[in-house]
Amino acid sequence: MPRWQILFLFSLIFLSSSTSNASVNDFCVADLKGPDSPSGYTCKIPAKVTVSDFVFSGLAKGGNTTNIISAAVTPAFVAQFPGVNGLGISIARLDLAPGGVIPFHTHPGASEILVVTRGIIKAGFVSSANTVYLKTLHKGEVMVFPQGLLHFQVNVAKIHSNAFVSFSSASPGLQILDSALFANDLPSELVAQTTFLDLATIKKLKGVLGGTG
Amino acid sequence: MPRWQILFLFSLIFLSSSTSNASVNDFCVADLKGPDSPSGYTCKIPAKVTVSDFVFSGLAKGGNTTNIISAAVTPAFVAQFPGVNGLGISIARLDLAPGGVIPFHTHPGASEILVVTRGIIKAGFVSSANTVYLKTLHKGEVMVFPQGLLHFQVNVAKIHSNAFVSFSSASPGLQILDSALFANDLPSELVAQTTFLDLATIKKLKGVLGGTG
Amino acid sequence: MPRWQILFLFSLIFLSSSTSNASVNDFCVADLKGPDSPSGYTCKIPAKVTVSDFVFSGLAKGGNTTNIISAAVTPAFVAQFPGVNGLGISIARLDLAPGGVIPFHTHPGASEILVVTRGIIKAGFVSSANTVYLKTLHKGEVMVFPQGLLHFQVNVAKIHSNAFVSFSSASPGLQILDSALFANDLPSELVAQTTFLDLATIKKLKGVLGGTG
Amino acid sequence: MPRWQILFLFSLIFLSSSTSNASVNDFCVADLKGPDSPSGYTCKIPAKVTVSDFVFSGLAKGGNTTNIISAAVTPAFVAQFPGVNGLGISIARLDLAPGGVIPFHTHPGASEILVVTRGIIKAGFVSSANTVYLKTLHKGEVMVFPQGLLHFQVNVAKIHSNAFVSFSSASPGLQILDSALFANDLPSELVAQTTFLDLATIKKLKGVLGGTG
Amino acid sequence: MPRWQILFLFSLIFLSSSTSNASVNDFCVADLKGPDSPSGYTCKIPAKVTVSDFVFSGLAKGGNTTNIISAAVTPAFVAQFPGVNGLGISIARLDLAPGGVIPFHTHPGASEILVVTRGIIKAGFVSSANTVYLKTLHKGEVMVFPQGLLHFQVNVAKIHSNAFVSFSSASPGLQILDSALFANDLPSELVAQTTFLDLATIKKLKGVLGGTG
Amino acid sequence: MPRWQILFLFSLIFLSSSTSNASVNDFCVADLKGPDSPSGYTCKIPAKVTVSDFVFSGLAKGGNTTNIISAAVTPAFVAQFPGVNGLGISIARLDLAPGGVIPFHTHPGASEILVVTRGIIKAGFVSSANTVYLKTLHKGEVMVFPQGLLHFQVNVAKIHSNAFVSFSSASPGLQILDSALFANDLPSELVAQTTFLDLATIKKLKGVLGGTG
Repeated sequence: MPRWQILFLFSLIFLSSSTSNASVNDFCVADLKGPDSPSGYTCKIPAKVTVSDFVFSGLAKGGNTTNIISAAVTPAFVAQFPGVNGLGISIARLDLAPGGVIPFHTHPGASEILVVTRGIIKAGFVSSANTVYLKTLHKGEVMVFPQGLLHFQVNVAKIHSNAFVSFSSASPGLQILDSALFANDLPSELVAQTTFLDLATIKKLKGVLGGTG
Repeated sequence: MPRWQILFLFSLIFLSSSTSNASVNDFCVADLKGPDSPSGYTCKIPAKVTVSDFVFSGLAKGGNTTNIISAAVTPAFVAQFPGVNGLGISIARLDLAPGGVIPFHTHPGASEILVVTRGIIKAGFVSSANTVYLKTLHKGEVMVFPQGLLHFQVNVAKIHSNAFVSFSSASPGLQILDSALFANDLPSELVAQTTFLDLATIKKLKGVLGGTG
Repeated sequence: MPRWQILFLFSLIFLSSSTSNASVNDFCVADLKGPDSPSGYTCKIPAKVTVSDFVFSGLAKGGNTTNIISAAVTPAFVAQFPGVNGLGISIARLDLAPGGVIPFHTHPGASEILVVTRGIIKAGFVSSANTVYLKTLHKGEVMVFPQGLLHFQVNVAKIHSNAFVSFSSASPGLQILDSALFANDLPSELVAQTTFLDLATIKKLKGVLGGTG
Repeated sequence: MPRWQILFLFSLIFLSSSTSNASVNDFCVADLKGPDSPSGYTCKIPAKVTVSDFVFSGLAKGGNTTNIISAAVTPAFVAQFPGVNGLGISIARLDLAPGGVIPFHTHPGASEILVVTRGIIKAGFVSSANTVYLKTLHKGEVMVFPQGLLHFQVNVAKIHSNAFVSFSSASPGLQILDSALFANDLPSELVAQTTFLDLATIKKLKGVLGGTG
Repeated sequence: MPRWQILFLFSLIFLSSSTSNASVNDFCVADLKGPDSPSGYTCKIPAKVTVSDFVFSGLAKGGNTTNIISAAVTPAFVAQFPGVNGLGISIARLDLAPGGVIPFHTHPGASEILVVTRGIIKAGFVSSANTVYLKTLHKGEVMVFPQGLLHFQVNVAKIHSNAFVSFSSASPGLQILDSALFANDLPSELVAQTTFLDLATIKKLKGVLGGTG
Repeated sequence: MPRWQILFLFSLIFLSSSTSNASVNDFCVADLKGPDSPSGYTCKIPAKVTVSDFVFSGLAKGGNTTNIISAAVTPAFVAQFPGVNGLGISIARLDLAPGGVIPFHTHPGASEILVVTRGIIKAGFVSSANTVYLKTLHKGEVMVFPQGLLHFQVNVAKIHSNAFVSFSSASPGLQILDSALFANDLPSELVAQTTFLDLATIKKLKGVLGGTG
């Protein structure tokens, strides 16, 4: 190898190595055993990061839809997919058997884009002004749900429907309305006062969902 | 005035004036007639800004609580108080007559801090993990509600209760659960499918709240 | 319980539990003994979080105003109120006895909204363009102070005045002008050079405020 | 309708209407004819927003892959899909015929998540430390590409492969390495000096890609 | 040109043009005549942007230091240099004649890095905890001043000193303490109350700096 | 000392000390041995912070330019200069001997401002739309490079040229095009497929730069 090549090699290596500590900040793969912070988990040591940290295979199979909502949500959020930590993005898979429903819910910290990959899905969200935005989506169609608003998805095909949903956060959260109201120990009287549902309805749904009080 | 004072005057004025265009960026009072943007409204021309833009008197009086919830929310968000535009903060006043309730709701884009200024308020929020955080707050006590989560406030005093609630956004939004479900044209069957409430309950509440379908 | 209810119960629990790790990210209560980061303190383990973390009672009583400024600031910032960590909001209480003054200060990292809850407060801020925005505020009136600008509050009532001040940060900081200039070891000559105050004035105020040099 | 229902109706409408101006800030559908800003386009008037603004059908069909790279990228960025404006998310569809390649490129302002929906795709990115993260992805597998880093995708199946790619920005940008170097008027000598490619290679590729100079 | 080259050309052009609207969002050169927003000015039409928008020659010459502070600040903020709009960075040049001083000031919305290019500069800042961080900097040395804190620079060389100061905002603002206190119409009594300076000192400095009241 | 002075002293100390925990959040000097997070490194304990943490002397001397590119980049990023942690700003020094070149590169997470301090530098960047922005810069002239775009700098003076480059991030990253393509183990065939360079060129440059495969 001629001298100029050795020098060239040296010089580019120098350029890179002189900033190599900084370059680890290209990404921050979550150390899920380390502390969490408002901006995400602390980072795995760069030397231990491999391509596996940036790949997630858990969405290749759908969730089990043999349940009363005939549907499943399989998340690839930071807790399942540490590579997204700090990158402001994550993804999940929706499986809806015939008649399947993802009931009313919100993501407290993220907007969502849904793309239908099989079947037909009716989706909707409600704005703060109480306007309903409702659409029946076919394969390949895309819908966006602005951050924090109540929305739902319903399979309106006679076959199994699928979608991928992406989020503007590595940890979008998921608050299911029914669970929030009826699957915990919030006293029934307080639910009644704050929702205007009647006690009988509340107690029935608490029974179904395992809530107490 | 001695020459050194003239020079001094000149020099500090120079320092300021040379950056005076930039200095208008201290704030961006909303021009509510101008276009809105993802970061807030476009700005009123600085020369027309006065102290009145930074002051709001609309919270001095409480809202009318002669209604079925015996409560009122009076906002000082960017739409009412243009001075908060772009500053990541706003405020509102809660008035709760005896028995008054601010029903379950979310703010899609903001966290909230509540401080009780009169009476006793029972407040609660539910996390994505369906845990209930519930507390009875007396005068001067403060509670924080993390962004986007369902929460409520109930007057548990025998007297009128009051609170100020501050938000981490100039435009926090307000999505009231009952209004989102029952005060619009979302078809009752779809509400039933996505909430697991029965049709009779839904139709009754739609009747009360003016919803159709 | 019929089979469909068991399935229903199972399915919603499944929806929630499959994302339960992520859901802890609804909030990040500060672990004040853990490391701090640019986005706030690392988080308390979710299982140990209780409603007490989201409630602060320290503003129910005012600070002691038996001092030369006849005033007190009682903060509920992240250091006192760990529940606000990462939420972009915090609050404090102002107590001003007759003649009380919160002297010129800035919050380096936050905008502020003040609401008067008792008495009459004259408040003002100065922009980068050296314009003064000055207003006398009565009970229930609100004023906003844009981020980082010098401002002050003066009790102009004959009675004790009170206000709550909210901030667009969990940790707004507080830099009091007099303390910054006169309550530390910055050499008097350097203060003179950089403020154009005379040495006698500086030394007198350093004496009062405990500064040296 | 009994009186209490009328009052109830009135009160919830009151709660909503009193904040109705603010509620428009749930979203900011781009007015593509209006001015752009650093945070995104200014907003379409809320009254003119319909569900169509939040739905995009242009990804239902793949792009034309009858070209030398045997591939196509079909974007649903803010310029094509105004509903994502300000929401920090967008999506695109990749079509790769057998032998198809999305050549080395960056997104200057966004991280990316890819999910394979058909075929097999070999994907890779290079970090600032010059480490290569390379993986062959099958249907349903997901890979994340951290913001701003050089990456590529290659179809390694014998059939047509497809993927959806989501971005952490409504306007992620797309800088294709070959186009940046060879499809413009940057003088060949300067390309040689700044890439260490030889002039013959540069001139040949400029010829192919339509570059001049 | 062979057919494969034509196809190649076509395909890369296709890749680019299909996203060409989005690509304008690489930058947002300020249209200083258009509206400002909380995120910066609205953007100049991309077709009219030239390299001149990204270049600023106004720092090649120093400002006039023939004034009482023997110093000058020459800014390249968004108001002078529209290319930095929305990019979170700007720069300025400091000129300090022998004895020159940049008096105590803050940048309400930005952190600052200073690099000395000639002479010797003593610089300092004060934290919220009233700690002084003070250093004498020689040519090539760098100091960082955290956002919003009071700081100053003094020429301690016998020759003219120079520095470049960069900011973490396109519009950092500049609030000079003396100007804020003494160069406007804030009543002297109010300055006295809120600074604990005596009236004689205030009136003298108001006289020098052109303040009234 | 008279009683009023003691009280005054006490009161301002009280104001400060009551918020002294919060005030540590003025800055977050990196503890480079502690964990990193998406927002930066965790913080050094405030009591151990000294002015040295905010000063960096490593740019006073230029890097060694006795290499094939006749150039050197000396960074003051967070890894070298812990005081910039979390402040959204950093700086580096460019040294270019006659004929020196900083080859095509990107900073994945930051915009850059360059100011020439000696000599003449030709600099350019390419947008997503493949437009070239090219300029010859003389001493004191400034150019801004928007985030994530490919750019380069070439010394066109007969003498040594210098510049300081500031970044809108404490950890801007540095991805050198040649290194990313030719200085690692990315298989040559894959480089060929994804860049359209021929194998001979790739293998030659891999040989020079130490790449394998």
